[in-house]
Amino acid sequence: MSRKEQVYERANIRAMQGYSYGEQPEDGRTIKLNTNENPYPASPRVQAALAGVDISSLRTYPQATANPLRKILSELHGVPQDHIVVTNGGDEALRLALTTFVEPGQNFGMAEPSYSLYPVLAQIQDAGVHRVSLSDDWQYPDDFCTQLNQAGVALTCVVNPHAPSGTLLDIGQLEHMAAELDGVLLIDEAYADFIDPAQGYNTTTLPAQFNNVLILRTFSKGYSLAGLRLGYLLGSPGLIDPIVSKTRDSYNVDHLSQVLGVAAIEDQAYARETWQKVRKQRTLLQNNLRQLGLTSPPSQSNFLLVDVPPECKLSAAQIYAALKQAGVLVRYFDTLSRKIRITVGTAEENDTLLKALTHLLN
Amino acid sequence: MSRKEQVYERANIRAMQGYSYGEQPEDGRTIKLNTNENPYPASPRVQAALAGVDISSLRTYPQATANPLRKILSELHGVPQDHIVVTNGGDEALRLALTTFVEPGQNFGMAEPSYSLYPVLAQIQDAGVHRVSLSDDWQYPDDFCTQLNQAGVALTCVVNPHAPSGTLLDIGQLEHMAAELDGVLLIDEAYADFIDPAQGYNTTTLPAQFNNVLILRTFSKGYSLAGLRLGYLLGSPGLIDPIVSKTRDSYNVDHLSQVLGVAAIEDQAYARETWQKVRKQRTLLQNNLRQLGLTSPPSQSNFLLVDVPPECKLSAAQIYAALKQAGVLVRYFDTLSRKIRITVGTAEENDTLLKALTHLLN
Repeated sequence: MSRKEQVYERANIRAMQGYSYGEQPEDGRTIKLNTNENPYPASPRVQAALAGVDISSLRTYPQATANPLRKILSELHGVPQDHIVVTNGGDEALRLALTTFVEPGQNFGMAEPSYSLYPVLAQIQDAGVHRVSLSDDWQYPDDFCTQLNQAGVALTCVVNPHAPSGTLLDIGQLEHMAAELDGVLLIDEAYADFIDPAQGYNTTTLPAQFNNVLILRTFSKGYSLAGLRLGYLLGSPGLIDPIVSKTRDSYNVDHLSQVLGVAAIEDQAYARETWQKVRKQRTLLQNNLRQLGLTSPPSQSNFLLVDVPPECKLSAAQIYAALKQAGVLVRYFDTLSRKIRITVGTAEENDTLLKALTHLLN
Repeated sequence: MSRKEQVYERANIRAMQGYSYGEQPEDGRTIKLNTNENPYPASPRVQAALAGVDISSLRTYPQATANPLRKILSELHGVPQDHIVVTNGGDEALRLALTTFVEPGQNFGMAEPSYSLYPVLAQIQDAGVHRVSLSDDWQYPDDFCTQLNQAGVALTCVVNPHAPSGTLLDIGQLEHMAAELDGVLLIDEAYADFIDPAQGYNTTTLPAQFNNVLILRTFSKGYSLAGLRLGYLLGSPGLIDPIVSKTRDSYNVDHLSQVLGVAAIEDQAYARETWQKVRKQRTLLQNNLRQLGLTSPPSQSNFLLVDVPPECKLSAAQIYAALKQAGVLVRYFDTLSRKIRITVGTAEENDTLLKALTHLLN
């Protein structure tokens, strides 16, 4: 083979498809209800922290392990600092879990459908993917763990609240999985900030009970900082240490992210207020969509997975396209028939969406 | 084995040591000449760009492929935009090259000694490391490529100017390597901004000649933004495409880094002035150290690798420790006998260093 024709990428990389991310229009006019961002901006304290940064502080390397941020997260969750690793977004945490715990050729486990990034990351690691189908109403089968153990799965990612459905597994179900699974269980709580406090959902004590459990959190949704790339894992030192000291990039979290992350965590009152507003809008939006014949499963997340019934005059793909035409972007997956996923927006954004839908469907 | 005792990390991760980074004192008083940062802060335009950021722009995901930054880098280097991938620091670029081009079990190639992160990244990928020793005066042996090809090396990293010596390979030597190596050649130009323009060093045309060449650049040193984590690779689309579309994290470069990176590149005049000042200080420092009996190889970087001769009353380790005591941090590697690496500081920092050394050695 001549040099000109030679392929240098690995066979598994060559064979795979990359992740398809949601559209990010930059026109400033589109109402973005497609990628599950928080509709409210971050706390004014984050803006103040940004204004206080002198760029001479960027001349030197950042604190390598983001210790000031780990410290405040440690206080927030009531876990020791060495049970936390901060990452360049939740995506990096997912990749690092694969890098650290899954051998190439071993299996990675997931529910199907769930977050479409998981199998992409598994393919990069040249790991197999064992998928366990959920029921039509988003329940995990009783033999979920048995199936994964039989496939020799080293790491299972369970997103909770679930994506794309928004439904919630309770703590008892998660404890059962942690106890039953032979490998590591990563509970991806990207949307956990939007869970109704009345649910009493709190998994931060799980790592102390189960040394195979990692909890993933992110600043992207709950703290309105998707553009900053900041996430973290909670787990026992047996899982966290090798990530902190070996597999993550040496300076994976930049100085600005550390400073703004601390400011965001410090203003819990503000963040909680945005979560409460999202929950209120979620309920309103779900009820109003139902009036239009578009139902969705109970969601503890900041999005709704809407069923487009067979009798609807437009298909899910047609609704997506017509809404886009009207300046409202929602998410359509060609792998999910008769469904569109709608991020909960502000009251005004949701009104615009509902008006457009009413116009389309009546 | 009971669950309590079970080890979940992969065998190669368990067996390896993490990267040892240089100390980052946070007292604000220490003179830091240990991690090769630029002694001058970034351009005032970077500060202005930061001041112009409204945090509501962080609510949504960043532009996934950092296109505004790729565009201005494309203009700077005169290469097409799809020949560039932007990364979360140069470290991420190195990791991604391993992920994309080196199979677990295959060999990674490097000169010995060179950047100590390389073998760490290879171990994470469970790749072998083939090291080719440099001569005492930092020359590559004639059979460098032959040795690496015989070892089936898939990716070779050559840092140029060299670390830790500061010496420079010329373009002819790099072209020879590119032509001879069977695998990918990554030229790690972390320090290239400090090369004297009189050297006529320019490798940005190499990827058009050789489809196995990647050029690594970083904002950490030349643009005084080590704290921001920003780097990039130049290469032909056959090498860049799989990284952009598959192996990098979907949103690997945050919005603030993109904005500040553009501002830094826009102010070339300012950056060039800092490089010129570093070169001037480099010459002065090297001459003044020679007066103290401490010689160093010709450096085209922002550091000097100083020989501590056997007749010196203090060992390299003792000099490191005594300077630290005096509030001046330099780098000592226990793998390099009788050497300390000193970053070129400001005129005032270098004076303080020289006074402390004079006091210690006379």
